[in-house]
Amino acid sequence: MLFDMIEDTEQKGTIFSELDEDILLNFIEEMKLDDIVGVLESLPSDDVADILGKLPEKKANAILKKMKKEGSEEIEGLLSYEADTAGGIMLPDFIAMSEKTTAGQAIESLQKEYMDVEMPFYLYVVDEYGKLAGVSSLRQLVVVSPDTPLKDFMSTDIFSVQTDTDQEEVAKLVARYDILAVPVVNDTNELVGIVTVDDVIDIIREEATEDILKMAGAGGEFVETQSVFKSMRIRLPWLFASCIGGIIAFYVIGRFEGSLNRFVYLAAFIPVIMGMGGNIGTQSSTIVVRGLAMGHLNLRDIWSVVFKELAVGLILGLIYGTIIGLAAQAQYSLVFVALSVGLAVFCSMSLAALVGSLIPMLFARINIDPAVATGPFVTTAMDIISVFLYFQIATTLLGI
Amino acid sequence: MLFDMIEDTEQKGTIFSELDEDILLNFIEEMKLDDIVGVLESLPSDDVADILGKLPEKKANAILKKMKKEGSEEIEGLLSYEADTAGGIMLPDFIAMSEKTTAGQAIESLQKEYMDVEMPFYLYVVDEYGKLAGVSSLRQLVVVSPDTPLKDFMSTDIFSVQTDTDQEEVAKLVARYDILAVPVVNDTNELVGIVTVDDVIDIIREEATEDILKMAGAGGEFVETQSVFKSMRIRLPWLFASCIGGIIAFYVIGRFEGSLNRFVYLAAFIPVIMGMGGNIGTQSSTIVVRGLAMGHLNLRDIWSVVFKELAVGLILGLIYGTIIGLAAQAQYSLVFVALSVGLAVFCSMSLAALVGSLIPMLFARINIDPAVATGPFVTTAMDIISVFLYFQIATTLLGI
Repeated sequence: MLFDMIEDTEQKGTIFSELDEDILLNFIEEMKLDDIVGVLESLPSDDVADILGKLPEKKANAILKKMKKEGSEEIEGLLSYEADTAGGIMLPDFIAMSEKTTAGQAIESLQKEYMDVEMPFYLYVVDEYGKLAGVSSLRQLVVVSPDTPLKDFMSTDIFSVQTDTDQEEVAKLVARYDILAVPVVNDTNELVGIVTVDDVIDIIREEATEDILKMAGAGGEFVETQSVFKSMRIRLPWLFASCIGGIIAFYVIGRFEGSLNRFVYLAAFIPVIMGMGGNIGTQSSTIVVRGLAMGHLNLRDIWSVVFKELAVGLILGLIYGTIIGLAAQAQYSLVFVALSVGLAVFCSMSLAALVGSLIPMLFARINIDPAVATGPFVTTAMDIISVFLYFQIATTLLGI
Repeated sequence: MLFDMIEDTEQKGTIFSELDEDILLNFIEEMKLDDIVGVLESLPSDDVADILGKLPEKKANAILKKMKKEGSEEIEGLLSYEADTAGGIMLPDFIAMSEKTTAGQAIESLQKEYMDVEMPFYLYVVDEYGKLAGVSSLRQLVVVSPDTPLKDFMSTDIFSVQTDTDQEEVAKLVARYDILAVPVVNDTNELVGIVTVDDVIDIIREEATEDILKMAGAGGEFVETQSVFKSMRIRLPWLFASCIGGIIAFYVIGRFEGSLNRFVYLAAFIPVIMGMGGNIGTQSSTIVVRGLAMGHLNLRDIWSVVFKELAVGLILGLIYGTIIGLAAQAQYSLVFVALSVGLAVFCSMSLAALVGSLIPMLFARINIDPAVATGPFVTTAMDIISVFLYFQIATTLLGI
């Protein structure tokens, strides 16, 4: 196949690490074990762990056995952490030296021992117990006199994360402080790896994609490259929420059959009321979900955010309630119908802004991903509420 | 104010560069010119250019005049590029040396001349005309013998971008190749700046946020920290699209008043038909918009993507059309009503998947941001089409 024509194993490795899961599995299925091992050995161990994590366990173990002893231990270590934690994404090769090492010794040892380090941005300084004590940039090494010990010029103002820190938190830290790598420590503050900025970029892109797809009820991972059936299976359950919502709406409207029988044109306004409520609700929940993800909004500000959204909903509800009420009056010249429609738009938009901002906030507070909870649920709930409100208002105002 | 209590001007600078536009303007309004200049001088020039770009031109010019000559020239240079191009986000201080410089001379000059470089990842090598010829990492410098000229060990396999390259393209390049900085060249291939990985992270986050908000019809920038009125103003026009759509739906349903008069329960199924079409359409358009942004989908594959979405729409339409048709039959026991509802769900879902994937693809092809075009437009168009289809099918089947 085409892949065989690429001679450089490193290039093969790069292609490997960029492939989608499905395609990768097919690929590896067709390759000889020795060839797979050859390609994987050219990759940094965090990428290998990533690829092995996607393979069936049996296959992964066979590959691990074949790989050079040293590398495979490192990878096995990585595989023991959850994939989306600092431990799962960290690179286990980093530069660490003791506090007493001098700048001159450090430069020498960089030239000898640390030639293989993939991302040599920082030199971490550890104390006699292997605990993280400070950090120095490679640049600082060359600007101090060669006999200065690291302890004297290292920075002790250092961020670190635990092996079980969520990858999203790690990404936020790197993004906020513009650092190139974060050291990862275990329970006893021993340095065990680093998460580098290139992996953070991938995380940020992935997390944003996940959020977007979840909000649209299209699963959490990008599926376009996968099969029609897989895509269908992922999307089916989300649509089920809106199907149930729609069937509930049958019954709600069914209850008002009497009103509909007398004023049949009430039906003509169902789409506009649902549409306006749905759209403003989506705006509110999107702003909240993304605001939380970006750190612009804080869970502590829950009430100020929700009140602001409610205010926006009230104002926009008033504006569009008036416009749509007037349009209804222009078409049917029935004041009470027009009034019902306008009032229903107003209520439905205000409530949608309130619910659309409140629900993701509440979900985030009880540690449910607000992106999942938002899309199909808010939309469906709002559809039912809007329709009910509308018929209730109309029935009351028209005295039916 | 609180800000005055922070004594460290560098910290003040960092706060400055993280503030939202509105708050920053208020802040700067209240500060003395000298204080502003003091704070800005502590920041790298790309950040200063960014801040000045947000200020009214008069104020920005006054500040520029006050700043030290050297720095302000650099910043004026940056201000002349579009904000969202490589030129607008590049850092004008970088390390560049001639091909003949030896490793030893390079290290010496790093210690003397280049102490102020903010992000010293790579040493760029330029030829006698200042044109970009190659690159070396700082690490390579210390591992070759000191008298080796840069020309002998630099890598000539180097990416660069033009000053007018879109920032999103720059970000994709950095993300794809895991590099820490991209050199920016002008029309004549002269090196004029670098875009660093920390800025790329910000771009990726911003662009994702922009896409998400645009798709929800909530503007392109995050507005939650801004005022209720500003937020309202940004969201108003998007809702107008759905208002017009709703009013069109009046007329569409009005045309079928006769059918409604005879079978009033037809109204009860409007929400479920709109909801199912709307939701699957959102799924399809979200997958396409995000797939294009992430580079998973390619404009060349337009037909294969659209056909796949159509296939998903047909299958899901068949499943949910059957479920909802049966539910309608269970409630009203009128075979032709149930058949109309089921068929309408099927048609509306298939069509929504088709339209939802086709529209963003077409928009991208004619260079309109697919994210803007997608949300409110697709939803509104689909609402009207769904409702029309439904009543047309019902009228035909019921022979009204």
